[in-house]
Amino acid sequence: MNGLEYLDRIAAVFAKLPGIGRRSAERMAYRLAWEPNGMMRELGEVLREAQENVRLCSRCGSITTVAEMPCRLCVNPARDNALVCVVQDPSDIVALERTGAYKGRYHALMGIISPMHGEGPGDIRLQALLKRVETEGFQEVVMALGTDVESEATANYIAELLKNKNVRITRLASGIPVGSGVGYSDATTLSRALKNRQTL
Amino acid sequence: MNGLEYLDRIAAVFAKLPGIGRRSAERMAYRLAWEPNGMMRELGEVLREAQENVRLCSRCGSITTVAEMPCRLCVNPARDNALVCVVQDPSDIVALERTGAYKGRYHALMGIISPMHGEGPGDIRLQALLKRVETEGFQEVVMALGTDVESEATANYIAELLKNKNVRITRLASGIPVGSGVGYSDATTLSRALKNRQTL
Repeated sequence: MNGLEYLDRIAAVFAKLPGIGRRSAERMAYRLAWEPNGMMRELGEVLREAQENVRLCSRCGSITTVAEMPCRLCVNPARDNALVCVVQDPSDIVALERTGAYKGRYHALMGIISPMHGEGPGDIRLQALLKRVETEGFQEVVMALGTDVESEATANYIAELLKNKNVRITRLASGIPVGSGVGYSDATTLSRALKNRQTL
Repeated sequence: MNGLEYLDRIAAVFAKLPGIGRRSAERMAYRLAWEPNGMMRELGEVLREAQENVRLCSRCGSITTVAEMPCRLCVNPARDNALVCVVQDPSDIVALERTGAYKGRYHALMGIISPMHGEGPGDIRLQALLKRVETEGFQEVVMALGTDVESEATANYIAELLKNKNVRITRLASGIPVGSGVGYSDATTLSRALKNRQTL
């Protein structure tokens, strides 16, 4: 292989990451190659350490380490066992934890049902969710999925799956984002905000 | 360290790459962690191989391998020894090679003179260029640097440096990009295109 072919292989991996197009991936790989401060070595080292240590929690799917399994969120006795929050992937757990507004358990599906991308109900962690609902005594399942069509279809599929399990099923409110104006919201968001209007 | 701290270290390296902000870097690192197909391992492997094999050509600075040093471009007898093209970094060589329109040698500066970023003439490969001009018998030095203020200042600095070396110094034409319209070009580009107008 010549030098560019090695870099193209790095670029091919980068290009699979979210938000990275083929051209950006190439620019990243080239920069790694000529960066005088040994960034290629540095990235290799942090990846190796992460690969040895980082795991997904076998229970909730959040990001944890080999040493903390199940994760801190699952074993923390101060958290509310009555609530489980269903998210698409581990980064959503990070976003929700940053708010400090949720103190229950989590369950990451590791995807959503997406027939367009060949992802069916068997490809996400639905059976694991069903089993947890049956054994862990949750009283409420909070759906924290996106508001696109596929995420909403996934939420409805889960609601159907759990309907005889004696748990309350809720979902995050949707409406006008805080700090935004009515004129900046699209029609669907506005209709939903109207429909779910609240008493002041 | 907890799982997120390992990922933050990966994100910190990604964030140093061109065009990658802190938030994108985090999303990339998180995706590496939960990607079911072992992308973290895959990236680690291609990086390790690249690190062992990829080098910058000791003569021109282009991307090559340990096995091809000096690089193919430097040793290819079919290329024109009368011309050397000065570029900012190795990816510019890749871009110029893609055109197929240049058959001379190259010299990558590995940066430009940028007082704002603390980069002086001693931080880029200027002495190496001077030495090559003195020993390799080039008849023309083609400046293929950017058209921003710092790149132009660097080109002028180099022209000054080489003025008694008996080489012709040229630079890439600048003007309206092919496929673009007059109304889309900024005033500086248009003035330069006017000044350098050509006979049809």
